Amino acid sequence: MIYGGIEAGGTKFVCAVATAEGRVWDRVQFPTESPVPTVAQAVEFFRKHEGLTGIGIASFGPVDLAAGRITTTPKPGWRNFAIVDALREKLGVPVAFDTDVNGAALGEWKWGAAQGLDTFLYLTVGTGIGGGAMVGGKLVHGLHHPEMGHIRPPHDGSFAGVCPYHGDCLEGLACGKAMEERWGKPAGELPADHPAWKEEARLLACGLVNWICTLSPKIIVIGGGVMKQAALFPMMRANVETMLNGYVPIPEIVPPALGDDAGVLGAVALCL
Amino acid sequence: MIYGGIEAGGTKFVCAVATAEGRVWDRVQFPTESPVPTVAQAVEFFRKHEGLTGIGIASFGPVDLAAGRITTTPKPGWRNFAIVDALREKLGVPVAFDTDVNGAALGEWKWGAAQGLDTFLYLTVGTGIGGGAMVGGKLVHGLHHPEMGHIRPPHDGSFAGVCPYHGDCLEGLACGKAMEERWGKPAGELPADHPAWKEEARLLACGLVNWICTLSPKIIVIGGGVMKQAALFPMMRANVETMLNGYVPIPEIVPPALGDDAGVLGAVALCL
Repeated sequence: MIYGGIEAGGTKFVCAVATAEGRVWDRVQFPTESPVPTVAQAVEFFRKHEGLTGIGIASFGPVDLAAGRITTTPKPGWRNFAIVDALREKLGVPVAFDTDVNGAALGEWKWGAAQGLDTFLYLTVGTGIGGGAMVGGKLVHGLHHPEMGHIRPPHDGSFAGVCPYHGDCLEGLACGKAMEERWGKPAGELPADHPAWKEEARLLACGLVNWICTLSPKIIVIGGGVMKQAALFPMMRANVETMLNGYVPIPEIVPPALGDDAGVLGAVALCL
Repeated sequence: MIYGGIEAGGTKFVCAVATAEGRVWDRVQFPTESPVPTVAQAVEFFRKHEGLTGIGIASFGPVDLAAGRITTTPKPGWRNFAIVDALREKLGVPVAFDTDVNGAALGEWKWGAAQGLDTFLYLTVGTGIGGGAMVGGKLVHGLHHPEMGHIRPPHDGSFAGVCPYHGDCLEGLACGKAMEERWGKPAGELPADHPAWKEEARLLACGLVNWICTLSPKIIVIGGGVMKQAALFPMMRANVETMLNGYVPIPEIVPPALGDDAGVLGAVALCL
């Protein structure tokens, strides 16, 4: 039995075919363009693999999970795009659908850093900021789905933020795009001793404190392009310790065990 | 079958005996003094009722749920007090134990405003600020338990906050004690048009935005003494709408259907 997964990100699509044990057989990635050619590229990849049992899509959002649509994204062309129908019609297999971060959380739970833990948090800090959480063994859904990047951290007002909806939400202040706009270079080009990282660690720690106080996760797994700066992990943790001041215990804060496959294997996990 | 419940608050203890349908047969309340005389008063009340099946304690925190203890509270005498053992030894019945807000959430789910909803949030804004959440039909526990009042909202720095651990966490800025210290009068004596309420609504809305983005609750129930100012509800909601700016749907935000019994009936619900 083989399964397909699509990590549908705002910057790139990653498609993979894998076994039920999370072993990747084939993989492709390409930039996220407008919906029609992007979906066509995914379909072309999956058609090469006969006998697909189903595919899972772990998508950027916000999404309407019941309708299988991406909703209020500012990304050109994708607003209200019915991605689930588009793929089901072309491929003729069942399609599972959730947010990119819920998918990645499920992947880390099945095969990664959160194995055996019923309550934990997965975060990504990349083009955007998002979080997927499992509580009592279930992914958090609810009225809509979490959009954790849009919480409001304290800041000194010296940078207005880049979120088109909120300006200075956490994503608006601390995502990769925000770092590039604020410091004049992509995060990947800022050296570990650049003051950008001190402020990034402080902002992310405000988010972590909020999530620790709200969800009490047993582990926090953080992936995404910005987190390639390994110096961020100890700096964030030191900030969290200072801010919480011993009031509640702090979980381990680690990178994804699945590395860059966390997203696409999470998508596969959705359809198992 | 009759059940006992203790709403163990930082200011007062409420004890009740109720049926499995949540009907209160008897009820008493008294100020929270040091542990020994306070527990003695609860024991005296429950001993009047023969045939108690068990009691539930919904306690102020932080607590160690497994050990049945209150832990790092700044409240004199209560730090590390083993409240569960103290009551079980005296009463000889099984004792269930959770946070005050998890108890109240469970009460509102069984008999109140959150009936039939698997994912929702209960908050209290009184002496302190706390939250209990249900996700996918289970109360959120985790590494420790949520301490939602201790998230960090943006503020202008004009008030340092009263939390002995964090200063300007949400509880430190917006709980009843903070309002009294900041505005010179207890919240209950501030008229509805006092500027205190505008700032209180803004601060609580920062918390609500964080919890909506993190938990995606289907309803938010808010109790506690500060919320007796009914004008707060529409002011908070208006702030939340402005801050979220249409990005995600906003759930109903309502007072507890169980009113002042939410806490003690929640304690009863814990032992059912």
